Amino acid sequence: MRGAILYAPRDVRFEERDDPTILEPTDAIIRLSATCVCGSDLWPYRGIETVEGPAPMGHEYVGIVEQVGSEVTTIKPGQFVIGSFFASDNTCEICRAGYQSSCIHRELMGPLGAQAELLRVPLADGTLVATPDLPAYDLIPSFLAASDVLGTGWFAAVAAEAGPGKTVAVVGDGAVGLLAVLAARQLGAERIIAMSRHEPRQKLAREFGATDIVTGRGDEGVAEIKELTGGLGAHSVIEAVGTQESMMQAIRSTRPGGHVGYVGVAHGVELDGQELFFSHVHLHGGPAPVRQYLPELVDLIWTRQINPGRVFDLTLPLDQVADGYRAMDERRAIKTLLRP
Amino acid sequence: MRGAILYAPRDVRFEERDDPTILEPTDAIIRLSATCVCGSDLWPYRGIETVEGPAPMGHEYVGIVEQVGSEVTTIKPGQFVIGSFFASDNTCEICRAGYQSSCIHRELMGPLGAQAELLRVPLADGTLVATPDLPAYDLIPSFLAASDVLGTGWFAAVAAEAGPGKTVAVVGDGAVGLLAVLAARQLGAERIIAMSRHEPRQKLAREFGATDIVTGRGDEGVAEIKELTGGLGAHSVIEAVGTQESMMQAIRSTRPGGHVGYVGVAHGVELDGQELFFSHVHLHGGPAPVRQYLPELVDLIWTRQINPGRVFDLTLPLDQVADGYRAMDERRAIKTLLRP
Repeated sequence: MRGAILYAPRDVRFEERDDPTILEPTDAIIRLSATCVCGSDLWPYRGIETVEGPAPMGHEYVGIVEQVGSEVTTIKPGQFVIGSFFASDNTCEICRAGYQSSCIHRELMGPLGAQAELLRVPLADGTLVATPDLPAYDLIPSFLAASDVLGTGWFAAVAAEAGPGKTVAVVGDGAVGLLAVLAARQLGAERIIAMSRHEPRQKLAREFGATDIVTGRGDEGVAEIKELTGGLGAHSVIEAVGTQESMMQAIRSTRPGGHVGYVGVAHGVELDGQELFFSHVHLHGGPAPVRQYLPELVDLIWTRQINPGRVFDLTLPLDQVADGYRAMDERRAIKTLLRP
Repeated sequence: MRGAILYAPRDVRFEERDDPTILEPTDAIIRLSATCVCGSDLWPYRGIETVEGPAPMGHEYVGIVEQVGSEVTTIKPGQFVIGSFFASDNTCEICRAGYQSSCIHRELMGPLGAQAELLRVPLADGTLVATPDLPAYDLIPSFLAASDVLGTGWFAAVAAEAGPGKTVAVVGDGAVGLLAVLAARQLGAERIIAMSRHEPRQKLAREFGATDIVTGRGDEGVAEIKELTGGLGAHSVIEAVGTQESMMQAIRSTRPGGHVGYVGVAHGVELDGQELFFSHVHLHGGPAPVRQYLPELVDLIWTRQINPGRVFDLTLPLDQVADGYRAMDERRAIKTLLRP
C-alpha cells in the first residue's frame, strides 16, 4: 500500500509502505475511506517537534473493516468505523471514568500512520465505533471530523463546562477551535465568542453558532472579552492552540470560578503558580478522550443534526498529501481532507 | 487597643494600636474572642514574602459585635460572629457563584490586623455569619478554625471533588491539610491518605478520618500513593503547602481524569504545560471562598458534629503572640490560638 512519510521538517513523501497485518488478536485492519492532516501534524512538519527518521504520519481515520483478529467480537468486516488517535480498551478503570486517551493499555495511532490506504487499529472492540449502516458519501467528512477535531473540540467544551446560561470564549480558530464553537452551541451555551482575525474562519464560526467575534489577541483579546462580560470574564474558555500566549489569553479571559478547557498540545508553556492560584479558574484538558463522545457524535452526524465536516475546506487525493500539509502550514486551508 | 505588628522577619511585637472605628456605613467593629496565627503568616515572618514597614498581622477571627455602621442590616451588636480572610459583599455575580474570595468588592482582612483586641470588618452583612446564640466556651476554637483553616481545607476537598467512592490523598500536614482530611471524611470519601512524617500530626489525621498514612515525599510519596491505588493514583488530591515540590507531588499522585484541589498559597511554583496536559488532571484552587461554607460549617460545629478546634495544640494569651509565631515556625505547634 501507499502512505505519507515525514522525512524531515517540510519533507512529506507519499510512498510504498508494507501492508499492515493483524499482529494481536485484538487488532483490526481497515481500508480508509478518508483521512486528513491535523493541526498537531504541523508541529513536527514545522520542525518544532523533533522528527525521528522517516515517520509514517496521520492519526485521523474512517474506513471499512477488512479483517479482524480472533479476539475481536463486536467489530465485523464490512462495517464503516471511526476511531480516535489513541487506541483504548474501553474497559479499564480509567476508560470507564471517561478518559480513554489515558487508558492503561492505550496505543498512540500516529506512529501507525493513518495517512495511508490501510491501517492497523489495535484494541478494535474498544477503539472503533461503527455507524448503523454504510453512510451516505456526503457524511464521510463529518465522520472523519469526529475522529479527532470534533471530539477534541467537544471535550474542550465539556472541560470548560459550556452549557445553558454560560458565556463561552474560544481561543484558536483552527478546526478544533471552530468545532469547539459547534460543541458549545450543542451543549446549550448562551453566548459564544470566537477569537479570530481571519474572515473565512469568522464566517464558519458564526455558522457553527458563534454569537460574537473578537479579533484582539493576548492582553488586547482579554480586554475585549472582559468588556463583553461586564468586566468579569467568560464563564467558560476553550484553549485550542497550545502556546504560552494562547494559554494565558484563555486563563485571563476566564472569570473567577470559571472553567478553562485546554486541548492545544502544550508547546513551551509554563504556568506561573501564583497567577493561576489567584485567577481562581478551573483548569482541565489534555489529549481528548474522543472515544467517550463517539457514540453520541456518530448519532448527531448520522441524523444530520450537525455538520462538522464543514471544517474541511480543501479535499485532495491522498497522493497529494504533501500539498495538503503545505496548504495548512501556510494557513491557506483550515483542514485538508485526503481521499485514498 | 493592643495588637500584633510585624516589623521585620521574625520580629513580631505586641503593641498599642489605634482602636478601629467605623469608616464605611457597611462596617462592623468586633471585639475578638479568639484569633490565631496562620501558616500563611509564616511566609512574611520567615522573610519569604517581603514585609513593608510595620504591618498589623492576622486574618482569622471570631468575636462579639460591638458596633455596626448605619447600612448594616443583618448583623447586630452582641452577636457572636465568624468571618473570613476576605471581606465580601456576598451579592455580586462572583459571590453568588460561590467565589466570595474573588468578590468584586473584596477586601483583604490581613492588613486590618486580626491579631488584636478589636477589628474592623468591612461589608459586615456579606462577610460575617452569626451563631444561633452565644456559643459554649469550648466551641470557640472550632468556630475560629472555621474562619480560615477549616474553610480552606473544606474548599480544597470540594475542589478535589472528594466524595463517596473516592480515594483522597492530602499533601501537607499543617492545620489546613489536617482539616482537609476532616472535610473529605464529612464529604463521604471512602479512603483518605494523609501524607505526613510527624507522629502527632499523623495521629490527628487519623482522628479526623485518615485511613492511611504515607510518609514519603516528592517522587517517593507519589510512588507510595500509586502503590496504594492499583498503580493509577488517587481520584482526588489536596495540596495544602504551596511549594513546587508539593504541587508536583499532588499532580503526579492524581490519576488521569482525577481532581487536584490546591490551597497552599503558591510560592515560586512553575507548572510545565506539557506535563500538566498529559497528566489529564483537573486543577482548581486558590484563596478559599470560606464564606460560601460558613453557614454549613457553623451548623456542624454548633451541633458538635465536627471538632476542628483540635488543630490548636497551643493556646497563649494574645500578648505572647511572638511566642505563638516562634512555636509554629519551629514546628513545635501545628497552630497557635491567641486569647485577647
